[in-house]
Amino acid sequence: MVAVDRSLTPRGEERRAQLLEVATARFAERGYRATSIADIVDSMGVGKGVFYWYFRSKEELFGYLLSAGMTDLRRCQLAAVSHSDDPLVRIPAAIRAAVRWAAEHQQLTALFEFAHRDATFGPLARRLQDLLIDDAVNELRAAMDAGAIRRGDPIGQARAILAVTDALATHGLHDAHRSIDEVTDDIVVFCLDGLGGRKGSPVPSLKPAV
Amino acid sequence: MVAVDRSLTPRGEERRAQLLEVATARFAERGYRATSIADIVDSMGVGKGVFYWYFRSKEELFGYLLSAGMTDLRRCQLAAVSHSDDPLVRIPAAIRAAVRWAAEHQQLTALFEFAHRDATFGPLARRLQDLLIDDAVNELRAAMDAGAIRRGDPIGQARAILAVTDALATHGLHDAHRSIDEVTDDIVVFCLDGLGGRKGSPVPSLKPAV
Repeated sequence: MVAVDRSLTPRGEERRAQLLEVATARFAERGYRATSIADIVDSMGVGKGVFYWYFRSKEELFGYLLSAGMTDLRRCQLAAVSHSDDPLVRIPAAIRAAVRWAAEHQQLTALFEFAHRDATFGPLARRLQDLLIDDAVNELRAAMDAGAIRRGDPIGQARAILAVTDALATHGLHDAHRSIDEVTDDIVVFCLDGLGGRKGSPVPSLKPAV
Repeated sequence: MVAVDRSLTPRGEERRAQLLEVATARFAERGYRATSIADIVDSMGVGKGVFYWYFRSKEELFGYLLSAGMTDLRRCQLAAVSHSDDPLVRIPAAIRAAVRWAAEHQQLTALFEFAHRDATFGPLARRLQDLLIDDAVNELRAAMDAGAIRRGDPIGQARAILAVTDALATHGLHDAHRSIDEVTDDIVVFCLDGLGGRKGSPVPSLKPAV
């Protein structure tokens, strides 16, 4: 994804990380169109040459932020599910990791929301979201094979889980001002029950052992 | 909502209905921006004066189509739930009515999708969707009071149901080419289970008695 594939010194890595951070903040604050490369480098107190050392264009930088963001979210989910082979532990863990990631990366989440509605970045946003769907489909297939949830169309179910997560997290965190844990409990219960995974039994260890 | 509040003759009513139908088709086909008042009246074989007899502007007409569409959808849902006092019959009936309405009004549904993403019409689209949410919240509150579903935040749950319906209908009908009945069964099962409304018992009469 990075156009300019240079071997970076530690100082170069640091400056690149700073560029990504500043760009994410500016894009989230003012929007993609209203943010220029000049705005970004001005915030860093450097010239435009620094920008072009790392990226060919604003568009390329934005696409990189989305791709790297999705990689990070999927890595967090993978780490979260890796502690268990039980689908009824793994599925809630993956949901929990996604909500926590979104809460901890609100600026990046705002960039994804913009990208989904944008003509230029919509196709990339959908391709990246499909990776998330694929991960969920794999979990759901394994859960069906293990008899842990009802058999059904795993792609539809994966999309339903993402939709519930988005709807309940947006409402619960932004409108109803509830805690991440409360909101995530609601999402997990709705989704696990919706998948036919709980069958009236209590959800084991909804709260993570802190 | 109609700017020009005239008493219409039967002939006038008919022409107005034709104008609404033609405009809906043109907007759905070409998009709101690319469709002019001239395009609409040309398709009807009349002059622009006919348009301005009914509406002050293209913007007003489009807002009217959205408002009237939402009124019709809510009327269909109200009719569908009116046959029973049982929340576990009413909630599936409302979901089923919404999916069926969207399938039967694909052009209007496309206009809603455009409106939600649009800066001008987004606020109206959200106000209209909030009416749908309010209806659902009333059903969910009654269901909680009757002990038919788990207690929870009814606004969040209403948003979750709308999100699941949208995700599963879009995927099932457009991507997976399944029938409306199959897709609606999946939505009803996911939502009723997600609300804690089935508790492992079979869903009564998923298929409407035709």
